[in-house]
Amino acid sequence: MNTGDAAFAALPAPPYWAVAFSSRRADGDAAAYDEAATRMVELARKQPGFLGVESARGADGFGITVSYWTSEAAIAAWRAHAEHAAVRATGRTVWYTHFELRVARVERAYGGGQAH
Amino acid sequence: MNTGDAAFAALPAPPYWAVAFSSRRADGDAAAYDEAATRMVELARKQPGFLGVESARGADGFGITVSYWTSEAAIAAWRAHAEHAAVRATGRTVWYTHFELRVARVERAYGGGQAH
Repeated sequence: MNTGDAAFAALPAPPYWAVAFSSRRADGDAAAYDEAATRMVELARKQPGFLGVESARGADGFGITVSYWTSEAAIAAWRAHAEHAAVRATGRTVWYTHFELRVARVERAYGGGQAH
Repeated sequence: MNTGDAAFAALPAPPYWAVAFSSRRADGDAAAYDEAATRMVELARKQPGFLGVESARGADGFGITVSYWTSEAAIAAWRAHAEHAAVRATGRTVWYTHFELRVARVERAYGGGQAH
């Protein structure tokens, strides 16, 4: 669905896969973090099986990013990507006080709002 | 996993179910919205099968809330809850310019960060 709002991922009908990444940013290193985050989204978009990504982070530093993929294999390949793996290591040790990642199979989806 | 950071849901081992709700807030009506959002989280916590919830919204008004449930049946029961249904109607017409909702089965999960 294309809402004209680029924050929403335009996804096909389910089933597809989702990676929900919740994180708390550590203080500091904002410029390097922002640059890496932007780069990772650019890189993810080029991966086979990438469908879309949505992301939100509040002023308290807690954020949720959900990326969408055609298959578990596509997620595994992105996970194994060398540059992505290197950036994740920095995330674990520098950028996040804590994170949780959940891999899920999307079974149903629907949307709405004033734009409809 | 209990990280001591209340923004993270403390969840059992998978499988379980997730409802990922992405939304763009319309301008205005902030006090009523905040009150309803707080009330819905309180109410959700009392529902059978509720496991936890995580939420983030950026200064641009785009937000993601992921709630976690033991089963699809628990999600359906929460969806059918009368007060929740009434609040959703206001969400569609007043609070959100657009939203997307995805229901997914979580197959794998892991976490990390400096707290470990």
